[in-house]
Amino acid sequence: MYDHVKGVRDFYPGEMGARRAVIDSLENVARRYGFREIGTPAIESADLYIEKSGEEIVEELYSFEDKSGRHVALTPELTPTVARMVVAKQQELAKPIKWVSTRPFWRYEQVQQGRYREFYQLNADVFGSSEPAADAEVLAFAADALTELGLGSRDFEFRVSHRDILGGMLESIDTDIDVQAAIRAVDKSEKVEQGEYYGLLEDAGLDRESAREFDRVLSSGDLEEVLEFAGTERVESAVSNLQTVLDTASRLGVGEYLTLSLETARGLDYYTGVVFECFDSTGEVSRSVFGGGRYDGLIESVGGQPTPAVGVAPGLAPLSLLLERAGVWPDEAIATDYYVLRVGESDRVEEVAARITRELRSGGQVTETDISGRSFGAQMGYADSIGAETVVIVGEQDLANEQVTIKEMASGDQTTAPVEAFPGEHDRPTYDDFA
Amino acid sequence: MYDHVKGVRDFYPGEMGARRAVIDSLENVARRYGFREIGTPAIESADLYIEKSGEEIVEELYSFEDKSGRHVALTPELTPTVARMVVAKQQELAKPIKWVSTRPFWRYEQVQQGRYREFYQLNADVFGSSEPAADAEVLAFAADALTELGLGSRDFEFRVSHRDILGGMLESIDTDIDVQAAIRAVDKSEKVEQGEYYGLLEDAGLDRESAREFDRVLSSGDLEEVLEFAGTERVESAVSNLQTVLDTASRLGVGEYLTLSLETARGLDYYTGVVFECFDSTGEVSRSVFGGGRYDGLIESVGGQPTPAVGVAPGLAPLSLLLERAGVWPDEAIATDYYVLRVGESDRVEEVAARITRELRSGGQVTETDISGRSFGAQMGYADSIGAETVVIVGEQDLANEQVTIKEMASGDQTTAPVEAFPGEHDRPTYDDFA
Repeated sequence: MYDHVKGVRDFYPGEMGARRAVIDSLENVARRYGFREIGTPAIESADLYIEKSGEEIVEELYSFEDKSGRHVALTPELTPTVARMVVAKQQELAKPIKWVSTRPFWRYEQVQQGRYREFYQLNADVFGSSEPAADAEVLAFAADALTELGLGSRDFEFRVSHRDILGGMLESIDTDIDVQAAIRAVDKSEKVEQGEYYGLLEDAGLDRESAREFDRVLSSGDLEEVLEFAGTERVESAVSNLQTVLDTASRLGVGEYLTLSLETARGLDYYTGVVFECFDSTGEVSRSVFGGGRYDGLIESVGGQPTPAVGVAPGLAPLSLLLERAGVWPDEAIATDYYVLRVGESDRVEEVAARITRELRSGGQVTETDISGRSFGAQMGYADSIGAETVVIVGEQDLANEQVTIKEMASGDQTTAPVEAFPGEHDRPTYDDFA
Repeated sequence: MYDHVKGVRDFYPGEMGARRAVIDSLENVARRYGFREIGTPAIESADLYIEKSGEEIVEELYSFEDKSGRHVALTPELTPTVARMVVAKQQELAKPIKWVSTRPFWRYEQVQQGRYREFYQLNADVFGSSEPAADAEVLAFAADALTELGLGSRDFEFRVSHRDILGGMLESIDTDIDVQAAIRAVDKSEKVEQGEYYGLLEDAGLDRESAREFDRVLSSGDLEEVLEFAGTERVESAVSNLQTVLDTASRLGVGEYLTLSLETARGLDYYTGVVFECFDSTGEVSRSVFGGGRYDGLIESVGGQPTPAVGVAPGLAPLSLLLERAGVWPDEAIATDYYVLRVGESDRVEEVAARITRELRSGGQVTETDISGRSFGAQMGYADSIGAETVVIVGEQDLANEQVTIKEMASGDQTTAPVEAFPGEHDRPTYDDFA
């Protein structure tokens, strides 16, 4: 007996139905915002990640040589791929470019709750606008996507910050600081002890005193404190940009989900402006659910014209933890509109059952019929197991009276209908139409 | 500048929109038939293919060692995976099991028109019924799926045969014949010269005389000739099974799409009963578009209880060739319900535009607005480029009169609407509602 490989999952119909409902809901909100679906490959040149993504991603890369010696990798994230696609058609694409897709990615990492080696993400990105309105639109989309799933402001919050606030503050301390390393330390600050956090900041080039003061200002969450700590043009402009983004997003109706949080940094190196992470407001789901932000340098770094970009990427697995915690994970039960049950093997029974099945399906109804040569009782048992709402019984006796029997499964009530009138003009005929 | 790797494809929004419409249509028909969606991993143990799939697939396998030395492969087909999933929950799953999914697969093969190294397939399978009704349901689903896409009987045909007809005929010639090799030869017969075909049959153990006679009977397409050539119980039972499947599928309304074709064999080793392939009736698309059939031995071979199975797997790329040839490939144009255009930067303009955008989106309308700080003209140009049906102009002047302007893009007609009444109670307010 074979098993799936470690870290990937099989989804059976009940769970998959719920996942599909979540994906459809997310994509539907993206569609309303004017994000257009794209399709992207699962395999890319390994170089695309080795040169552009953070160290962490490269360590976890599923990479190998294909049969002609190309060094390829299973895509661990979408951003480098969409950046490549923007570059390939930079001239012809109308800006802003607003793209969305939902698909699996692969990272060889430690398997834990809500984290797998094969994981599904929706990615929504806007290319070609450096305006705060673009950041705000991405934030508003992400918040609307969550409320559409039944979450409210007591369930989630977006902690929002700006990379240039961190970068500008660090730069004002000492220009020799390894800013990326220090930002990665901030990204880890909530997950490690304070001592370890200060150690990481010191490794990045801060002395103990500066690390302490830097931490104090970030924890204050007060933009006035930030400006006092580092009143440089870079920090001032970041603070102003962040405020405009928050105001614009609020106008789009999602202000109640946004919290200023200077300790939010995002792990990936390529972010350049506003960054945000979604958290469970109750803290029960302890890790960041997903995140996003602005990455204005990436397109140029893969060979394109300088092109501002901002995006967000909700992952299905961590999102499902939040939806379950909040009690709004979709129902996993299987639903079926009709089961057409055959009694007897005469040509007439077969023909009538086939016609009814065909017509119900043509009308868009989820309809099953016997394909296993089963008894009445076994067919009823199966109809029940697939949650059939109505069972249409086609039998010799009823047909002698030109009738079929319509059984409502929830109540057990049944009645007869003239065989020629079923389904007839009805879109979705039920017991009530004939009782 | 990076490119995608050879044999995979990037899909930009226009083309992706058309592909999504095709996938949605196929899945919608599958749903009506009671097929339930499952989710499956992209990575499996390489053993699953090396031991069970045909030689051809193994040669084309993207396989590699993961970071802990597991020999894994990118899934080249779905059947071994679903067989494994059936085995894992054999006791709890209600039979028949009817599963569907659409996803990419990977084979390292020669890239040509309609054939890529990364390719998308819908797979629909029925497990747990050996009855002809199950084969018929799969055929009916596949035919309905194509007619739903706008294809008719002048566009496609399913060539249907039965593996035991071939196997039984070969066995009756000489029990030493390598039946799998001979069946693979039949599968190739339409693609190679007659001399090469006979050569392959001889390699499989037929003498020249038998090869010629075998070929003659197959080409005749006459089941009487088959029974005369080999009147064994196995062949008789296969002929009778095939006839019942064709009759049952006809009752489900798809008889006109089915053709008996004894030369249809399918390349994969695991088929055991009815097999079929879909062809372009005009012959313009020269290769088989997709195929399916019964594979009763596979579940047992991956460690499960003996479980009959039948399935079909339309591939998007060859299907798109057929849809294009028939002129029914979906429109690739991008559509947008509303563009909300802002003139001026006053708070009032920003607020009204944000509210209208928010309300239209809440009502399910695809709505874009300016996120790039553009001029009136540039915004109009963008609205045109995304195919906006209606442009709502929010400007200082109109607002002074408590109005917004509604412009119908197709005609260029425009009118004003009271700002508070837009969108108001209307689900999808247009120029006509206010003119």
